Amino acid sequence: MKTITMDLSCALAEAVGENGIHENDLRLTLGKISEYYTKLLARPFPFMTLPSTRFQFDEMYALADKASKTNIRNLVILGIGGSSLGTQTIFDALLHPLHNQEERFREGRPRYFILDNIDPHKMTAVVETIIPEIDRTFLVVISKSGETPETISQFMLFNELMKKSAGYRERIVLITDMEQGLLNKIAQKEGYPVLNLPPGVGGRFSVLTPVGLFPSAIMGINIKKMSDGAAGMAAHIVRYDAEENMAFALAAILYLMYKNGKPIHVIMPYCERLAAFADWFRQLEAESLGKKGLGPTPTKSVGVTDQHSQLQLYVEGPKDKCIVLLYSATSEVPIPDSFDYLEDVSYLANKDMKDLFHAEFQGTRLSLTESGTPNLSLTLDEVSDYNLGALFYLFEMVTTFMGHLLSVNPFDQPGVEQGKIYTKAIMGKKGFEKEREHTDKFLASPVRQVIF
Amino acid sequence: MKTITMDLSCALAEAVGENGIHENDLRLTLGKISEYYTKLLARPFPFMTLPSTRFQFDEMYALADKASKTNIRNLVILGIGGSSLGTQTIFDALLHPLHNQEERFREGRPRYFILDNIDPHKMTAVVETIIPEIDRTFLVVISKSGETPETISQFMLFNELMKKSAGYRERIVLITDMEQGLLNKIAQKEGYPVLNLPPGVGGRFSVLTPVGLFPSAIMGINIKKMSDGAAGMAAHIVRYDAEENMAFALAAILYLMYKNGKPIHVIMPYCERLAAFADWFRQLEAESLGKKGLGPTPTKSVGVTDQHSQLQLYVEGPKDKCIVLLYSATSEVPIPDSFDYLEDVSYLANKDMKDLFHAEFQGTRLSLTESGTPNLSLTLDEVSDYNLGALFYLFEMVTTFMGHLLSVNPFDQPGVEQGKIYTKAIMGKKGFEKEREHTDKFLASPVRQVIF
Repeated sequence: MKTITMDLSCALAEAVGENGIHENDLRLTLGKISEYYTKLLARPFPFMTLPSTRFQFDEMYALADKASKTNIRNLVILGIGGSSLGTQTIFDALLHPLHNQEERFREGRPRYFILDNIDPHKMTAVVETIIPEIDRTFLVVISKSGETPETISQFMLFNELMKKSAGYRERIVLITDMEQGLLNKIAQKEGYPVLNLPPGVGGRFSVLTPVGLFPSAIMGINIKKMSDGAAGMAAHIVRYDAEENMAFALAAILYLMYKNGKPIHVIMPYCERLAAFADWFRQLEAESLGKKGLGPTPTKSVGVTDQHSQLQLYVEGPKDKCIVLLYSATSEVPIPDSFDYLEDVSYLANKDMKDLFHAEFQGTRLSLTESGTPNLSLTLDEVSDYNLGALFYLFEMVTTFMGHLLSVNPFDQPGVEQGKIYTKAIMGKKGFEKEREHTDKFLASPVRQVIF
Repeated sequence: MKTITMDLSCALAEAVGENGIHENDLRLTLGKISEYYTKLLARPFPFMTLPSTRFQFDEMYALADKASKTNIRNLVILGIGGSSLGTQTIFDALLHPLHNQEERFREGRPRYFILDNIDPHKMTAVVETIIPEIDRTFLVVISKSGETPETISQFMLFNELMKKSAGYRERIVLITDMEQGLLNKIAQKEGYPVLNLPPGVGGRFSVLTPVGLFPSAIMGINIKKMSDGAAGMAAHIVRYDAEENMAFALAAILYLMYKNGKPIHVIMPYCERLAAFADWFRQLEAESLGKKGLGPTPTKSVGVTDQHSQLQLYVEGPKDKCIVLLYSATSEVPIPDSFDYLEDVSYLANKDMKDLFHAEFQGTRLSLTESGTPNLSLTLDEVSDYNLGALFYLFEMVTTFMGHLLSVNPFDQPGVEQGKIYTKAIMGKKGFEKEREHTDKFLASPVRQVIF
């Protein structure tokens, strides 16, 4: 099989000079990863075994099947961060680009609303849209801890709305940790069915659990094939060593880039369907590795669009970046010779949009390389459930390897706790009186303002 | 008036220690900007006078008026980079969040499709959607140079589609440079009306010309008020000096951050309607300043969502960033006491979603500040046409000032030319035979591949 091809030529010193990676460093780093991986295989992290365990697949199919029989028109997903990014990525990649907008592209499936923010303006807009069809709305509430205030407050709102329609208990599913948390308490009291994250799998590593897969199953996406793709990638990582191992090679390059003064990792899909994948990886890399004063800064660009926005900076700006290109294009769109009186555009006439898209991708690669900006590219033969599953697993392993190389724990996020405490204090939660004094002081402290 | 308030307290050394700005540096930099601005006023750059000249407003109103009489259902905009980002920003800020999805929120205005990419999959989806209503589709083609291959190839495709419907000439408008370029030639031959960019105004500074304003006028957005906002900001910049001047202060801080080892500028709206504004500024800053080995890297985050994705990195990662927060929230969404049996959520019950949104914004500010990550915030009393015009003008001036401080020309983009040449060479354009040899060599050179 040859479904994903990674080309690392243009990340090497041979291609981009001093900004590139030296063979020696690459070999050494690959060795370190290989050694670590051997140990890891003896005691794998829980997310690593997901593709083989197919955790709660039967439960998901049963609930999705029941959902499809209720003739639903709207799927509302409440979740933020790791609870929403995976689903958004899958939907963007595998549903029709105008799924929500045009009924004929939905093939009988519901529209979806992923509420990953509490901006009251957007909330109002979605609520306005849902209310007239609340009896045909299916609600999925996702929070690993079960305590996320954004998700819980949204649930408080939607729970009241849903309760106004008959049979609403059939149209609510909660996804949360197996034991602890408020969502479990609510489920028990209200009689809502629950799906879980397996023990030890964190939010940003949860796309291949019910968190990402249950909403996908409702949309008719083949979650088994997605899981097969992840299993295929897991098998590839077991089978190959050194540079032939895609996860080893990608982790080594991204790590060496970071160490060699390229802390900005630009992830740049030439494929609109993979634009959300960049957001998904952005969380995975930032939250897993950004600690102890270390960590690359991931940033998202989209080709060809951002050639007209960011490329100038990548080519002539500081050499503090490496660019990870993703490429996939399959559809064909012929360009008619509509202005045959213009010599200047004859090179476009009767070509395909795909050819131009590919030429721009290659032109950008060459232009980056010649300006000494290291880059590498992953080309997918198609944007499929299988390849997407493989990509998820690949980048999860890559992040885990980078965590080891940087000596940070990729599975915690201690830096966000303080902000959560302050939010609760400002909201007047009991038990946070001392912190409230502190936030009051901050909010009352003299400010330097400029007013327009 | 007090419509936009900038708080710079948490960018200063007093608040964030060594990562912050010292009073002395601030004063010195403000002085440099002030001196430069005085010279600039004598010979302003062309974009600076746009709010007072109201360039082609009459022509825009006449054409938009005519458009509205054709009972159009789809507005298709072909443009990329500076030709699309402004319009996208305006539409996201001022139209209903579900404008395209729900007819009742459109108030009789058309759906819109901004085609800022040539990804063939997406192109196919949009063409499929438009074709059955091609006789009710209005096409706006935007390219300053008139030569952008992405836009021209899309136009070749849409021109053929449009020609199949009666009266299509009434439903096409081109926006381009006043004299040169292919779009002018096409307009002459086909009889399409043309709007312009005024001489000397570049793509990324063109949002307040017909490029951003004509599509807005079609959607019924008050472009005079937007222009008034820009004029208001222009007047503010003339009137105030030093730190009381919002453009001086913002430029000084962003520049000093860059100089002080914080080359990553995170622009983070707490306001979904301003998310696209971050993309607009991302182009403005990157393409204007990324040259001669210099230039900050702008990156976009959205609050509160990215608290669950990027905040960990901002708080505990390297101190190589400053965070520019934008905040605005007006709608109210009460949180009902739906789980009154849970003590743990009583602090949310009967509050407003807006209160939680604001508490998270403040909690994040405090948490960033205490971890020594410099940040500043701009709070808008509302997301209005007026404020949006003011913001555009503010950031354009800020970018111009930063260009002066960095000694780079903010109005060119030499670094993207090479990629354009390579694209044409790969596509087989006449006159690019020598470059074709070069691209052929690159494409045929041995690669280091990893295969899955």
